[in-house]
Amino acid sequence: MTIANLQGLLREFAAERDWEPFHTPKNLAMALSGEAGELTEIFQWLTPAESSAVMTDPAQAVQVRDEIADVFAYLLRLADVLGVDLETALTEKMVKNAVKYPPANSTL
Amino acid sequence: MTIANLQGLLREFAAERDWEPFHTPKNLAMALSGEAGELTEIFQWLTPAESSAVMTDPAQAVQVRDEIADVFAYLLRLADVLGVDLETALTEKMVKNAVKYPPANSTL
Amino acid sequence: MTIANLQGLLREFAAERDWEPFHTPKNLAMALSGEAGELTEIFQWLTPAESSAVMTDPAQAVQVRDEIADVFAYLLRLADVLGVDLETALTEKMVKNAVKYPPANSTL
Amino acid sequence: MTIANLQGLLREFAAERDWEPFHTPKNLAMALSGEAGELTEIFQWLTPAESSAVMTDPAQAVQVRDEIADVFAYLLRLADVLGVDLETALTEKMVKNAVKYPPANSTL
Repeated sequence: MTIANLQGLLREFAAERDWEPFHTPKNLAMALSGEAGELTEIFQWLTPAESSAVMTDPAQAVQVRDEIADVFAYLLRLADVLGVDLETALTEKMVKNAVKYPPANSTL
Repeated sequence: MTIANLQGLLREFAAERDWEPFHTPKNLAMALSGEAGELTEIFQWLTPAESSAVMTDPAQAVQVRDEIADVFAYLLRLADVLGVDLETALTEKMVKNAVKYPPANSTL
Repeated sequence: MTIANLQGLLREFAAERDWEPFHTPKNLAMALSGEAGELTEIFQWLTPAESSAVMTDPAQAVQVRDEIADVFAYLLRLADVLGVDLETALTEKMVKNAVKYPPANSTL
Repeated sequence: MTIANLQGLLREFAAERDWEPFHTPKNLAMALSGEAGELTEIFQWLTPAESSAVMTDPAQAVQVRDEIADVFAYLLRLADVLGVDLETALTEKMVKNAVKYPPANSTL
């Protein structure tokens, strides 16, 4: 499924529940940061090594997948209501970052 | 480009810069929440109506696109290092949410 | 009670539960941002006017107080483990901000 | 200075700049989470051990103090506009937490 397809599903999901008036960019940005906070909480007391093994615990794996899905859902909705093309925004940002952070062993 | 393609680009980008040791799930979750915080800051003093018009201001539009791209980049990286399929995680979460929040005019 | 007294209570609370090894600045910053995320979630679908009336709903009032307390607790712990004096840090930042943002009707 | 004194200073600071209309609980919660995000960014690539030594680097120390001050400022403002007594909220939450998390070597 493409990113646009996923956004279509979420748009319909919101419409069927009369959530559109709540989905202003301001509110969606808040919801995104709230879900990012919940995702952070899963990892806050883990060592870096423990965090790398988090998916081996079935209960934590479900929690991680759910929180990642929530962040992704609000990001897709936010981009959709703002008319931002996620793929273009990302690749353009990567070009900026490639200049800002040249590769490690760049000899140019 | 598919989500997997975008993750491939980001994986390569990180590898070329020797960033992999830093890209633990713990650190990437922090980076994601940091970028979500920067995105939130753009909207914090705007009214809901002003937030809906944010892309009409060229300078703010660039800022919004860049912050959305940063959130997306860290979400893609986090899902990649954890082996979470974003599309599957999202659609499974939507099924859970469809049960939790039935449509507004559902008469079943 | 002073800020230092509150920090003393929290330090003892952490020590009695053997939580000190977990209370690195990195982890406490994550915990703080996680709680800030939960606080944000309370307000995300409210209009600005509804947000101003949030304490008139007894159930929401309890939730708000609890989340504010959690944010405060982690901020106090973080400042404590870093040796940052909160009062000094705040008043020094206000001096910087006073220069950056002169009063509205300043005629100087 | 007491917490109430600090809140008084911040209230006056906002009033002198005509910021009060912007300081709804919704907006202040967003601002708080934005600053928590900036604080998180300081620590995101540090190991736990490096995070414990962050104040030994003068430039990072200034940054940490400033971000902690920003979080504290918005927390004080938010509590002020909501009429939440921070000290009471914190001590009440600690009582709840003491029940939820008994001391490590409790034999009662």
